[in-house]
Amino acid sequence: MPTATLLITCPDQRGILAAVSGFVDHHNGSILRAGEHLEPDTNLYLLRVEWDLANFALPDDRIAVEFTPIADKFQMKWRLAFSARKKRVAIFVSKMAHCLADLLYRHQIGEIECELPIIVSNHPDARPLAEFHKVPYVELPLDSSMSKDNKAEVEARQLALMREHRIDLIILARYMQILTPRFIAAYPDGIINIHHSFLPAFIGARPHQRSYERGVKLIGATAHYVTEVLDEGPIIEQDVARVTHHDSLESLIGKGRDLERVVLSRAVRWHLEDRILVYGRKTVVFE
Amino acid sequence: MPTATLLITCPDQRGILAAVSGFVDHHNGSILRAGEHLEPDTNLYLLRVEWDLANFALPDDRIAVEFTPIADKFQMKWRLAFSARKKRVAIFVSKMAHCLADLLYRHQIGEIECELPIIVSNHPDARPLAEFHKVPYVELPLDSSMSKDNKAEVEARQLALMREHRIDLIILARYMQILTPRFIAAYPDGIINIHHSFLPAFIGARPHQRSYERGVKLIGATAHYVTEVLDEGPIIEQDVARVTHHDSLESLIGKGRDLERVVLSRAVRWHLEDRILVYGRKTVVFE
Amino acid sequence: MPTATLLITCPDQRGILAAVSGFVDHHNGSILRAGEHLEPDTNLYLLRVEWDLANFALPDDRIAVEFTPIADKFQMKWRLAFSARKKRVAIFVSKMAHCLADLLYRHQIGEIECELPIIVSNHPDARPLAEFHKVPYVELPLDSSMSKDNKAEVEARQLALMREHRIDLIILARYMQILTPRFIAAYPDGIINIHHSFLPAFIGARPHQRSYERGVKLIGATAHYVTEVLDEGPIIEQDVARVTHHDSLESLIGKGRDLERVVLSRAVRWHLEDRILVYGRKTVVFE
Amino acid sequence: MPTATLLITCPDQRGILAAVSGFVDHHNGSILRAGEHLEPDTNLYLLRVEWDLANFALPDDRIAVEFTPIADKFQMKWRLAFSARKKRVAIFVSKMAHCLADLLYRHQIGEIECELPIIVSNHPDARPLAEFHKVPYVELPLDSSMSKDNKAEVEARQLALMREHRIDLIILARYMQILTPRFIAAYPDGIINIHHSFLPAFIGARPHQRSYERGVKLIGATAHYVTEVLDEGPIIEQDVARVTHHDSLESLIGKGRDLERVVLSRAVRWHLEDRILVYGRKTVVFE
Repeated sequence: MPTATLLITCPDQRGILAAVSGFVDHHNGSILRAGEHLEPDTNLYLLRVEWDLANFALPDDRIAVEFTPIADKFQMKWRLAFSARKKRVAIFVSKMAHCLADLLYRHQIGEIECELPIIVSNHPDARPLAEFHKVPYVELPLDSSMSKDNKAEVEARQLALMREHRIDLIILARYMQILTPRFIAAYPDGIINIHHSFLPAFIGARPHQRSYERGVKLIGATAHYVTEVLDEGPIIEQDVARVTHHDSLESLIGKGRDLERVVLSRAVRWHLEDRILVYGRKTVVFE
Repeated sequence: MPTATLLITCPDQRGILAAVSGFVDHHNGSILRAGEHLEPDTNLYLLRVEWDLANFALPDDRIAVEFTPIADKFQMKWRLAFSARKKRVAIFVSKMAHCLADLLYRHQIGEIECELPIIVSNHPDARPLAEFHKVPYVELPLDSSMSKDNKAEVEARQLALMREHRIDLIILARYMQILTPRFIAAYPDGIINIHHSFLPAFIGARPHQRSYERGVKLIGATAHYVTEVLDEGPIIEQDVARVTHHDSLESLIGKGRDLERVVLSRAVRWHLEDRILVYGRKTVVFE
Repeated sequence: MPTATLLITCPDQRGILAAVSGFVDHHNGSILRAGEHLEPDTNLYLLRVEWDLANFALPDDRIAVEFTPIADKFQMKWRLAFSARKKRVAIFVSKMAHCLADLLYRHQIGEIECELPIIVSNHPDARPLAEFHKVPYVELPLDSSMSKDNKAEVEARQLALMREHRIDLIILARYMQILTPRFIAAYPDGIINIHHSFLPAFIGARPHQRSYERGVKLIGATAHYVTEVLDEGPIIEQDVARVTHHDSLESLIGKGRDLERVVLSRAVRWHLEDRILVYGRKTVVFE
Repeated sequence: MPTATLLITCPDQRGILAAVSGFVDHHNGSILRAGEHLEPDTNLYLLRVEWDLANFALPDDRIAVEFTPIADKFQMKWRLAFSARKKRVAIFVSKMAHCLADLLYRHQIGEIECELPIIVSNHPDARPLAEFHKVPYVELPLDSSMSKDNKAEVEARQLALMREHRIDLIILARYMQILTPRFIAAYPDGIINIHHSFLPAFIGARPHQRSYERGVKLIGATAHYVTEVLDEGPIIEQDVARVTHHDSLESLIGKGRDLERVVLSRAVRWHLEDRILVYGRKTVVFE
C-alpha cells in the first residue's frame, strides 16, 4: 500500500504529537506507525509518522502545502517521503565485492527496494557481478602516479554521473578512497559508508590489521553517514563478532566480511525506509 | 518527575493516536514518550502514552473519568498507571538464590524501583540474604511426604500473604514449584517466571540437563508471564549464551545463572515501568 | 602448506596424546594444531592433530599403515585427512537461494575450499545463479500429484549422481524435501542441513511461522548433520537474532535468511577443514 | 581431583607437545586437558597441559625439578600451578560496588575459587557488603586536597598489605584510581582491571559519557591486565550490549554494569584456573 511519511525535528513543546496526528486524522488518514524521541540534553523532539494514503483526502502534492502552517508553528525541520517514489541509489566499490554482492542479492529478492541505475568503481574486478545483476558499471580508475590531479577529475565525473542519474543515496560498499569535502557537501546525510571496525576504535586505515595486533576479543563493523571528518559521521548501525587467539589475520578478515555486509545492509534498508533522523552527531533509527 | 501512563488495546481504526494525544494536550499535558503497535493479523492497535503531570490540568483521580468517553468511543481495553505509585512486589525463591541476590542488589542501588514487602520461600537457604537487605522472609516449607494436602495449605497461606501485603507483582526467581490454576488466576499477567531455557525448547523440568544432552551450541533463558499451561505464557524477554563441547554440565549451569538474572531483571524492570502489553500469547515491550 | 590431520575417538586412557604426538614427532612432523576433548560422562577421548607434511618422513600412503598399531593399541576409531585432497561437495537447493548464493560467493573468493561439481534442485529458480558461478545445475522436479513413486525415482537418480561425481559432502541449502533413510544411510555424518529455527525449538515444518505466532524474542538457525530422525541430528552450529513486536513475519524471515547463511557457511567450513567429530548426538568442533 | 598445570611459552620447534605429553605419561600422569597455540607472526608456541595428580609418580615438589631439562632443551618460559593451592586475591573497589557484589556472590556459591583475605577501598561505601560476606575491609582514603603525597603513602600501605596477605592477584573492581608504575611493577600480569568501554575505544576517563555523546549503537566492557600505559594492557575478555536512542546516559550506565560484572568475572575465573598466557600485548585464553 502507498504511504506517506513525515520526519520531523523541532524544539520540544506541548502538543506536537497531537498536532501532527490530528493533521493526518483530519484529512482522513490512518496512521500505520508513529515513533518519537525526546532528547533530554538538547530539548529536541524527533518524530516520524507514517500513514496509509489509500483514503487520504489530500492529493500528494497538497500535503506539504497544508502541513506547512503546523510546521511553522512548532519551528519544525521536516521532510515528507512517499513510499511509491523509490529512491535512486549509486553503489561505489573498489576491489573487495562482498558488500556489493550482498546488496545486489538483497535488491534482487526485494529485501532492499530502490532504483539502482549505476555502480561506480576504480577497479574492473566487480564488473561481472554487476553485469549478472544487469546494473550499469562505470569504471573510473584513479591514477596513483599523479593521483591528485586525476582524483579531482574523477570526482567531477562521479558527481556528474550522480546528477545525471538523479541519485538520492550513495553507498560506499568498501570503496577505499577518501572523498573530498566538496563531494561530501553535495550529499549531506546522503552517503553511507561501512567502516570495518567498531568505531571510534580503529579510525582510519587498516582497522583489521590493527585489531589483530591489539589482541581484541571482538571485532566490529560500523555503518555511518559520511561527513568531512574521517570516520566521525553519525553512526547508523554497529555490530561485533567474537575472535580468539585461534583467529589468524585472514580468518579475522573473513569474520569481518560477514559483519560488514549485514551491518551495511541494515543501514541501507533503514535509510531507504525513511527511518533515520540525524541530530548532531547521532542518529535516531525508528522501529 | 511524576508521570501518568495510559496503556491501551483496541481494534485498529482511524484517529486513535490523535484522540489520545489530543486528550493529553487539551489538559495541558506534555507527552514524554509515545509508542504504538499495529498488529496486522488481528487488526489490533496497542498504544502507550506517558506524560508529565507537572502542569497537567486534571487531578490524578479525574483522569480516568475524563478519559472514559474516548475509551468507550474506540472500544478500548485500557489502564492508567502513575509513576508516583510504586508497585508492591513479592519474590518467590527456592534454594538457588542467584536471581534473588541480583534483584535485591538492583533494588538497593535504585535500578529497580518498587516496594518489596516480602520474600516467600519453601526453603531456609536465602534467609541471610533477605535479612542483609532487610526484607521480611517467610518460609513455607512444602512437605513432600504428603505433598498434595500441604501444597493447598501453603498456597492458601501464600495468597493470604499476597492480599495482606497488597502485592501487585509476583516474581518467581527460580521458585521450583508449579503454581495451581487457582493461584495463577488471582494474578493474570501479574506473575513473572524465569525459565532456564530458550522457550519453547526444553519446556518443563531440567532444561539445563537436557540442553547438555542434546548438544546445543547456545543455551537460553526466558522470562514470561505465568499462565495455566506450563511454560506457555507470553514471553517477555529471552537471551542466549554460547556453549561449546568444553562446557561441563556445571559450567553450562553457571553460564545459565548469568543469563537468568539478566533476563529476569529486564522483564521485571519493564513490567514495573508499565512498558509491557500482553495480547494473545505475545507481548509488546514499548521502548 | 600441505598438512595431514588425524581425527581420533577412543576410550580415555593414559598416554594417548603422548603416543600420537610422539608418532608425528618420530617421523619428523611438526604439529600445527592439536585439540582434544575428554567427555566425562562416557569416558570418551576425542583428539585432532594436524601437522605440516613438508619434512614428514613418511609418504602419504604409508601414514595410515604406520599409525595402525597405535590406533589398535588404544582401540581408536580414527580417520586421516589430507589438506591437498579437496573434498567434493554437492549442494541441494529448492526455491529459496540465499544460502546457495552465499556458499557460491564464499567458494568464489576462496573462503570455502572444495570441489563443487554439481548443484541439484527440484526447481529451476536457481539455475542462473549456478550458471554465473559455472557450476552444473541438475533439475530433478518432484511430481506432487503422484509424489511417492516419483520421489523414489528422483532419489535414485540423485544417488547415482552423487556416486558419479564421487561426492564426499552433501549440503542441504534450504532443500525443502525430506530425504529417505536409505539416502541418509549412504552419507553418515556426510549431509549438512540448515534448519531455520533454534533447535530443538520448532522441529519440523514452518518454524518461522511458528516462531512468529509464539511471540519469541529471538529467532535462530541450526546447522546439523542429517540423521534418520527429522531435525534430531548432531548440531554443528547455532546462532540467533533478536526480533521484536515490530517484526512482521516477512521481516522475521529476512532476519532468518541472514542467520541461515552465516550458520550454514560456518558448519560447512568446519566440516571441510576436518574440524568436526561426532560422538553420540553431539559434535566437537575443534578450533 | 587435584591437578597440576604446566603453562609454557617457547620458540616453535618440532617435538614440544610430544616431549611434554611424554613427560606426563612417563610419570604415570593422565592428561585432562591440553591446549596449544602457534603464533605465526612471531613463531611462538604456547602450551597448556593439565593432568590428574591421583596416580602421578612424582611428588609435587619434584615435578619442576624433573621437568627443567625438557624446559631448557626447548628454551621454555614456563610455570607450574597446582589446583590444590588456592590463589590469594585482593579486591580493590571505590564507590560503585556492582562488580564487587558480583564477585563476592560468585565466591560464596563456589563459582570463583580462591582465598579472599582482603578488600581495599578509598571509600567506606562497600563495607557492609564486605562484612556480610565476612571479608576484612581496609579503608585507605585518598586525600584529594594534597593527593600526591597521600597517594604515595596510601600505595605504600597497600603494597605492605599485599605482602602481608601474600596476595597473588589484585582485582580492580571499578577502583577509580590510577596505580603508579612502581605498584604495577610489583604485580606483572597480576592485576586485572575492568574498563567500562570496548577498548581501544574510549581509553581514559568517563567512557560511558563519551559513548553516549558519540552516539554508538553498542557499548562495551573490557577486562585486561594492568600495565604502565593506561588501558593498553593485554585484553583478557570483552563484551558488548546494544543501546539505542531510547537509552539515557543513566540507562546506558545500567547496561554497562551488567556487562562489567560478567566480563570481569570471566577474566578472573580464567586467571584463577591458570588458563591465560600473555604474549606481547595479547592473551591466549585456553578453553
